[in-house]
Amino acid sequence: MKKEELLENIKRKKTFLCVGLDTDIKKIPFHLMSHDLPVFDFNRAVIDATAPYCVAFKLNLAFYECEGVKGWMSLEKTVEYIRTRYPDQFIIADAKRGDIGNTSKMYARTFFNRMDVHAITVAPYMGDDSVKPFLSYEGKWVILLALTSNMGSNDFQMTQYNAGECLYEKVLRVSKNWGNDENMMYVAGATHGKMFESIRRIVPGHFLLVPGVGAQGGSLEDVCRYGMNGQCGLLVNSSRAIIYADATGKFAEKAGEAAASVQKDMAFFLSGKGIIQ
Amino acid sequence: MKKEELLENIKRKKTFLCVGLDTDIKKIPFHLMSHDLPVFDFNRAVIDATAPYCVAFKLNLAFYECEGVKGWMSLEKTVEYIRTRYPDQFIIADAKRGDIGNTSKMYARTFFNRMDVHAITVAPYMGDDSVKPFLSYEGKWVILLALTSNMGSNDFQMTQYNAGECLYEKVLRVSKNWGNDENMMYVAGATHGKMFESIRRIVPGHFLLVPGVGAQGGSLEDVCRYGMNGQCGLLVNSSRAIIYADATGKFAEKAGEAAASVQKDMAFFLSGKGIIQ
Repeated sequence: MKKEELLENIKRKKTFLCVGLDTDIKKIPFHLMSHDLPVFDFNRAVIDATAPYCVAFKLNLAFYECEGVKGWMSLEKTVEYIRTRYPDQFIIADAKRGDIGNTSKMYARTFFNRMDVHAITVAPYMGDDSVKPFLSYEGKWVILLALTSNMGSNDFQMTQYNAGECLYEKVLRVSKNWGNDENMMYVAGATHGKMFESIRRIVPGHFLLVPGVGAQGGSLEDVCRYGMNGQCGLLVNSSRAIIYADATGKFAEKAGEAAASVQKDMAFFLSGKGIIQ
Repeated sequence: MKKEELLENIKRKKTFLCVGLDTDIKKIPFHLMSHDLPVFDFNRAVIDATAPYCVAFKLNLAFYECEGVKGWMSLEKTVEYIRTRYPDQFIIADAKRGDIGNTSKMYARTFFNRMDVHAITVAPYMGDDSVKPFLSYEGKWVILLALTSNMGSNDFQMTQYNAGECLYEKVLRVSKNWGNDENMMYVAGATHGKMFESIRRIVPGHFLLVPGVGAQGGSLEDVCRYGMNGQCGLLVNSSRAIIYADATGKFAEKAGEAAASVQKDMAFFLSGKGIIQ
């Protein structure tokens, strides 16, 4: 998906919500457990209910690998379901991969050719040749970890170098030359609020994928105040607060309501910025 | 597997070779392609031929995910084959995972409970809470990326901080307190030769998993000179140079010969250090 198309979807649907399908088989409603692929059936219902209120779906690989072969079946069927049923949705494989060039090339083949998602999250630690193999696919994106939402982001990402620059700032500054704002985005955790200002100084035009709103305690208002650019430039992810909004037979309906409520807030911020009427 | 047992195997078999099962379906002999799971059948033959000359097998996940559901079947069957047939082999899932605590916990469950490998490679960028969930399993290991074998290791790992310390040194210094040398190892690329001295100053007792010998050009002699400690403390990986030693019906026999030749060199270095007679 091209950047232009993603921006168009955001304006048309008045939302920049990404629904995180972190589907833990231990948390899905009991009545689905007799199905052949309970995780896929859960996802399908959540996707149908939330699609009107979001522009993207993010699948965290950990939650699928955990079920082995069956998990990969649920993963592949979910991606295929979104691609065929909701072709305007941007699909992210939250895989946090990254390896030597030879190996990253294999991962790129898996996610971009075989599975045909639009984007994959990648860890920057191994440097340029671990990231570049993902950048040669037309219409596909790398979403590079910059400043993550967890406490551990203090350990290395926030460490200052000689010139007072933090590692996450160096990652942004160096890596933005590997691609451009039409094939790279960055992960920036909602829990870091005001630090979005320093991120925007380095990458004013790039999309940021923002986890950490909801269960992790980040504020949507702060993210919009400090991180939104003139075209929006944000995909804000919410997983647990939406997909587990309810644990009964009404789980999908309630997930839809939770997504609709976030969409309403997002429309307010988009309008405040003059991006939509 | 406990550290003591791994050390015992190294002395008994006079080798610290880890055979990397980076099995690319596009590179395996043609006659296997009619099999139901060609990758598993290839692996099984290579494992039988090389097991006498190594103490560990490393499976790079990229090469299995690339085949989707079928790849996961080959992966799980390969691990099970090694576990049941060669219980003295240390099995490494080279997955380079790492995510927020909640998600790392899922990955740990997958690799340590479900698949039952001994160790998983983890990327350090996200800090302590992304690594610690892997450290609570008895007899299981985290192998943390420190200084990788690729060119891109210059981009961030080699960046100096205020006190003249590089990022990879900080990663070693900080992370060694998260666990100990009985549940943590580090990845240190063979291409960095003399820098093993600085690594050994920080983690004298930890095992190092060393990729980059063979196809990537690292020298076994340098790795042993600068990286070997009094108990050995090394697992040196070779993938392509062993598993693709031959592309005909004799691939397994030739892989065995290639492994035997490396084992002979390793026995020489172990003996030179007085670890074996």
